[in-house]
Order: sequence, then C-alpha cells, then structure tokens
Amino acid sequence: MNANEVLESLEWRYATKVFDANKQIPLDKWHVLQESLHLSPSSLGLQMWKFIEVDCSQLRQELRGASWDQSQVTDASKLVVFCARKSFTHEDVMDHLNRIAQVRGVAIESLDVYKSRILDLVESKSPEVLKAWLERQVYIALGFMMSSAAMLRVDTCALEGIDPSAYDRILGLEDSPYYTLCALALGYRAESDSYATMQKVRFDIKKVIEAR
Amino acid sequence: MNANEVLESLEWRYATKVFDANKQIPLDKWHVLQESLHLSPSSLGLQMWKFIEVDCSQLRQELRGASWDQSQVTDASKLVVFCARKSFTHEDVMDHLNRIAQVRGVAIESLDVYKSRILDLVESKSPEVLKAWLERQVYIALGFMMSSAAMLRVDTCALEGIDPSAYDRILGLEDSPYYTLCALALGYRAESDSYATMQKVRFDIKKVIEAR
Repeated sequence: MNANEVLESLEWRYATKVFDANKQIPLDKWHVLQESLHLSPSSLGLQMWKFIEVDCSQLRQELRGASWDQSQVTDASKLVVFCARKSFTHEDVMDHLNRIAQVRGVAIESLDVYKSRILDLVESKSPEVLKAWLERQVYIALGFMMSSAAMLRVDTCALEGIDPSAYDRILGLEDSPYYTLCALALGYRAESDSYATMQKVRFDIKKVIEAR
Repeated sequence: MNANEVLESLEWRYATKVFDANKQIPLDKWHVLQESLHLSPSSLGLQMWKFIEVDCSQLRQELRGASWDQSQVTDASKLVVFCARKSFTHEDVMDHLNRIAQVRGVAIESLDVYKSRILDLVESKSPEVLKAWLERQVYIALGFMMSSAAMLRVDTCALEGIDPSAYDRILGLEDSPYYTLCALALGYRAESDSYATMQKVRFDIKKVIEAR
C-alpha cells in the first residue's frame, strides 16, 4: 500500500453516526477485522483482553438501551464490545508462557528469564496502576481495528458513552474475569448521515506533534 | 486495499527489537505517519494528547539511558513520545469548540448543546477516572499509528519499559500540561533481528473473541 492510499483511508474515516442497517460487512473483510484484534500488539504480547462480538439482535437491542439509545448499536453490521481484565495473576502469565512454548516448540524452562521479567513487572504495579495499564492495552486494539477498518473502507464508530455495568449484566460478564470498557460499531454509513460530509476538525498538526 | 493485503500487513508486523540504524523512513511515508496521529480518533474528537517527535541524536541518547538502554531508542529512524494531559479543563473544551467553529465556519453559540454535553462528561469524572480516560485515548493513537505503519511496511516497537519521569525531565515537560506515557520507535528491522523470524504467538482466536 502506498503512502497516498493510507492517507486517503485515514481521511475517509469519521465517527459514523448513522449506519445503513441493510449493508453487511462481507465475510472475507470481517475475518480480517477479527484478525486485527487477534494480531493487535499488547504489552509483552500478553493479550490481556477479551472482545465480544454481539450478533444476536435481541442482545443488541438491550445494549442499545444501555447506550443512550444510540442507533449504531443495532444498525451497524457488527458490534464488538471491548473488555479489560479485572486482574492479572501468576496464572495468566503462565497461560501466556505455555502458549509461547506450544507455538514455538520450546521448553517452558527456556522462558524462565522472561517469566521473571513479566512477573516482576506485573507484581510491581499497585492495583490502580495495574488496572489502568490493562485498560490502556485494550485501547491499542481499538485503534488497531479502527485503522484496519478504514483501510478496508469499513466505517466505524467507537462508543464510550455507554453504561458499562449494564453491558456486563446483559453480556453475562459479572462473574467472568472481564468487564466492559467500550464498544465499536462497524459497517457502512447511511446516505442520510450528515456527519459524513462535515469537515473533519483537527488542531493544527504543529500543535499536536512537537519536535525536539 | 483488499482484505488479503491488510491481513498480510498485520501478519508482517512484529515488535522490532533491532533496527537498522542506516535506514530512514522516506519523507512521504513519514508525513502520512504523522497524519495517522493527527487524524487519529479520540473521544468526542477532543485530541487530548501531545506527540513529541525526537530527532536530536543527543536527546535520543539521553532517553536511551532512561529506557533500560534499549537500542531501539537511538537506532530507529524515528522516535515518538506519546504524552497524556495532566488535566482537562473548561479552557481545553473551549479550545476544541473554537477550533470547530473556525474549521466549519459556524457560530460558537451553535455549539452550546454539544458544549454542555462535553462539560457534563468531563466534570462528572473523578480525578482518577479522568486521568485513566485521558490516558486511554493516547493508546488509540498508538494503535492507529502502529497499524498505519504496518500498511506502509514500516517497522515499529512500542516502548512501555521506560522511566516516564526521566523522559519528562529530558524533554522539558515538567512544567507543561503533558506527561510521558510511552514511546514508539519506527524504522526498519535490522537483518540481525532474530525476533523477525520467530513464530508470532497468539491465543486461539476463539479464546480472544467470543460470540454472543
């Protein structure tokens, strides 16, 4: 992909307010968008997240009620709920190390130095710092998926204005290790979405990026 | 860009440990990568962030000392430091609204409803919740830039293992409204980087993405 194509994709993207409820994301593109979550970077590759794809229209309707009735929740082709971990324990670190050993065909003992490094890092954080760190990782995946969608000319709208506790209840997360942070609607803009043609508002680039 | 090309870009990406210090990102690609930050989505479009591009080799050397001597800090073609805001005030909201009025050529008064909505949202958050929210937005931009770089076949390595306070001191941020969260090195992998050919480790996609 050349520089101009990437720039055009970034400029094409906007926070879609009205989705065309009749247009679905083709399966080949959706698989790649799922992979954009699956392959997203995370600190130390720990993948301390969960993504919930909500396809059931009844659940979507309930979630809309917990989202200030925003139509994107029901009308977009896809809805993904981004969840963070409530905690991160020794067992979670071992899950990751076991997976490395399995995928790369190495002995788990060969990862001892790496294991100590991760455990030191995780255990040195206070509960508040740990929580903020785990949550930030989920937002890397959010940015990763939104950018990938733009490259595929799939529209998105990130939804932070939701009731996360109600989401947790509706999705049955209350007794799970995860909780809701935000959601992302994906699909295609409706012709009636007036936001599509509004001028994008950004500060001057020199205000946002400083040189040293 | 078709689905396969995006997937190939995502699979091509890895956390580069050794950069080729002689290979520079061409200017046209770098401008697009700067735009990936500038055009990144943020909550309500508030752009509550600062990105510092560190080109001075002396500063890079100092930052390396505050980064566990990781070679990426000095050897990558580019280094961007991702900063969050220390606070977010009424004045910041007005900066944003004035910019909307300016870019879209509308009267500032026409944004009164939107203004109340933003102020309600910002002022309803406790200091801790506000801080975490501001920080998470910066990570959207991090994901956005890493994905855009992969599309352009530019290598990246996110650096969280740094001393943020030392970064603030070295970059002169202590008396500014911003503080360091993390950094991103961008450039080209060295032939000697053994991580480039290691099998990527991910949990089974069904463990990461659940359907409802």
